[in-house]
Amino acid sequence: LQSKLPGIGTSIFTTMSQLAAEQQAINLSQGFPDFGCDPFLVEQLASFSQQGLNQYAPMAGVLPLRQQIAALIARCYHQKVCPEQHITVTSGATEALFCAIQALVRPGDEVIVFDPAYDSYAPAVQLAGGATVHLALLAPDFQVDWQQVADAINDKTRLIIVNSPHNPSSKVFSASDWQQLQQLVCQHGLYCISDEVYEHMVFDGRPQLSALCFPDLAARSLVVSSFGKTFHVTGWKLGYCVAPPALMVEFRKVHQYVTFSSFTPAQFAVAAMLEQQPEQVVGLAAFYQRKRDVFCAALSGSRLQLLPAEGTYFQLADYSAISELPDLEFCRWLTVQHKVAAIPLSVFYRQPPAQRLVRFCFAKEESTLQQAAEVLCRL
Amino acid sequence: LQSKLPGIGTSIFTTMSQLAAEQQAINLSQGFPDFGCDPFLVEQLASFSQQGLNQYAPMAGVLPLRQQIAALIARCYHQKVCPEQHITVTSGATEALFCAIQALVRPGDEVIVFDPAYDSYAPAVQLAGGATVHLALLAPDFQVDWQQVADAINDKTRLIIVNSPHNPSSKVFSASDWQQLQQLVCQHGLYCISDEVYEHMVFDGRPQLSALCFPDLAARSLVVSSFGKTFHVTGWKLGYCVAPPALMVEFRKVHQYVTFSSFTPAQFAVAAMLEQQPEQVVGLAAFYQRKRDVFCAALSGSRLQLLPAEGTYFQLADYSAISELPDLEFCRWLTVQHKVAAIPLSVFYRQPPAQRLVRFCFAKEESTLQQAAEVLCRL
Ligand SMILES: CSCCC(=O)C(=O)O
Ligand SMILES: CSCCC(=O)C(=O)O
Repeated sequence: LQSKLPGIGTSIFTTMSQLAAEQQAINLSQGFPDFGCDPFLVEQLASFSQQGLNQYAPMAGVLPLRQQIAALIARCYHQKVCPEQHITVTSGATEALFCAIQALVRPGDEVIVFDPAYDSYAPAVQLAGGATVHLALLAPDFQVDWQQVADAINDKTRLIIVNSPHNPSSKVFSASDWQQLQQLVCQHGLYCISDEVYEHMVFDGRPQLSALCFPDLAARSLVVSSFGKTFHVTGWKLGYCVAPPALMVEFRKVHQYVTFSSFTPAQFAVAAMLEQQPEQVVGLAAFYQRKRDVFCAALSGSRLQLLPAEGTYFQLADYSAISELPDLEFCRWLTVQHKVAAIPLSVFYRQPPAQRLVRFCFAKEESTLQQAAEVLCRL
Repeated sequence: LQSKLPGIGTSIFTTMSQLAAEQQAINLSQGFPDFGCDPFLVEQLASFSQQGLNQYAPMAGVLPLRQQIAALIARCYHQKVCPEQHITVTSGATEALFCAIQALVRPGDEVIVFDPAYDSYAPAVQLAGGATVHLALLAPDFQVDWQQVADAINDKTRLIIVNSPHNPSSKVFSASDWQQLQQLVCQHGLYCISDEVYEHMVFDGRPQLSALCFPDLAARSLVVSSFGKTFHVTGWKLGYCVAPPALMVEFRKVHQYVTFSSFTPAQFAVAAMLEQQPEQVVGLAAFYQRKRDVFCAALSGSRLQLLPAEGTYFQLADYSAISELPDLEFCRWLTVQHKVAAIPLSVFYRQPPAQRLVRFCFAKEESTLQQAAEVLCRL
């Protein structure tokens, strides 16, 4: 059997989380919280399921959730979107990204992605018969060179995939980044997939921006987000896509045959959470900024060099002063010998640059972060 | 924007369920129960979520669930499958079907499907760059002509998709059907996707068979099933795929980037259900056979001609004695004028034959079935 995805193995997240479990290591690799979600969310889940809401949700998601998403977008970005026409609920942001790519990319199309890139973009493009063009962003600032993007655009270019706040670099696009992106997308008649799953984790008073804030860009964009990240329930696999009607029609054609609909009681539970506790979303940036600060302060005595983390729940660190190992080997060594698991940065690049960087997830209890930092300070 | 799926509109299930809701009609169209699931399942869901199991499940599914699936297969089919290597949990059978198709079908490949066919097969094949070859099965017996299948196989044929018990015809494959399928798949080096989501609903003492019962076929098959159907929770979107390791590796490569994993607490809840109440699965055939019998008995005075229903929770009826309308119009008329919603059969065919058939879902309270039958008897 010839593989449709010959280059693909087990994802780094599965690999490192398994190794961490085997080694009983502190797991700062795969991005997920080690603390519980708000009990209200669990109560709502139980309650809606007990009420008997266990059958198929509508294909586009239950209306109360879509209404709350529209309200959230209005609050965060002062943009008006229509729950019926612009929003579809998905089984996680991963499904939304996959459907968006399938809806847009045709055989022979080129898709611009920025490395380090989330691992699902390229295989999804490949399955659609397209090819990814990888533009490398480099430490320490991971700034997009928009002239380089302009130069990479040609007749085959269909789509640019962006991700701000950015996993794994923690970089947040400035207004100028968004404007330059808008300019290129519109000028060349491209489309944009904007992966904004960490949208509510922007630190140090930076403005929280979205592709939705730039109307000409929004008109050609599919914007993807995730409640797993926002409400500390990555295992709930609940995300959504926002797009103008002409794009949303195409998105739904795919979604209809990929999963059709998502876990019904969770949709109602998240709708209740958004309606009754909107302050949870507002407080998320401060919540994670504090964790970043605790983790970084605890690491101040280490030989790790910490990079700026503008958003997300990830912290990059340069370990050159500690080891000459390549980053994957370094991560294995750190997990097996020192019982702290991290993610190597090279796996996010098509052509890994010569840098020694690892990613730590700080979506953890402060005690976990302190414990990990103690180990890391001894290296 | 040129559509990747130009022929696709809103699915008939969405269309009819929406019309039924608008018209406050009895909804016997989209396949889902109008009764609750076992309270144990809901309790388990709440309990696992309360215990904090709300983060990413492993990509292939939580191990207790995969172990229970293996035990279920051993009980039903006396076949041994390995939870680690042969089984992957998915976000509904729809996702499993989509991933299986994406894993196998390459641009230019042909896929044999039997009409009337579930609506997701053809778009999934199309997105993979393949083409479906539609062989029509006809009322009243919907028997596959295996010689016709043999004649349809050529150098481009990659895959045969089968579905037994069959939606919408309620036909169940005999051992001879499975053997002839096995013979063709092996002789021509094809693959098989076996959609067995109604596997536990086989009536009148017919043997419950699966592609897994035929080792040479199983070696080239991806078998798909669904807990939504088995446990009356279609909105839980929890299904799975069983395949030999070489096929499962390819399936997982796709699944990893389509949804990555499925709703965690539901996986544990269904595992607990399978472990602690295995008799629920065993009793399902009798449970639905009784509903079929109640519905058919209540319709005995009607001018509908009922077709044999060997399995599933669907009943076909020929309405030629009542109306000359085409089936889609008949279903609209029935919903709007008489407040009973059904599904027209023609939408499941690439080239609808000249027949006047509609599908009723009898996964309903007996009182609902009686109420609908009263209306239908007056037509
Ligand atoms: C779907 S597992 C990956 C989780 C994640 O987003 C990350 O660790 O980057
Ligand atoms: C996913 S909605 C369709 C439900 C179903 O399987 C049917 O009604 O045939």
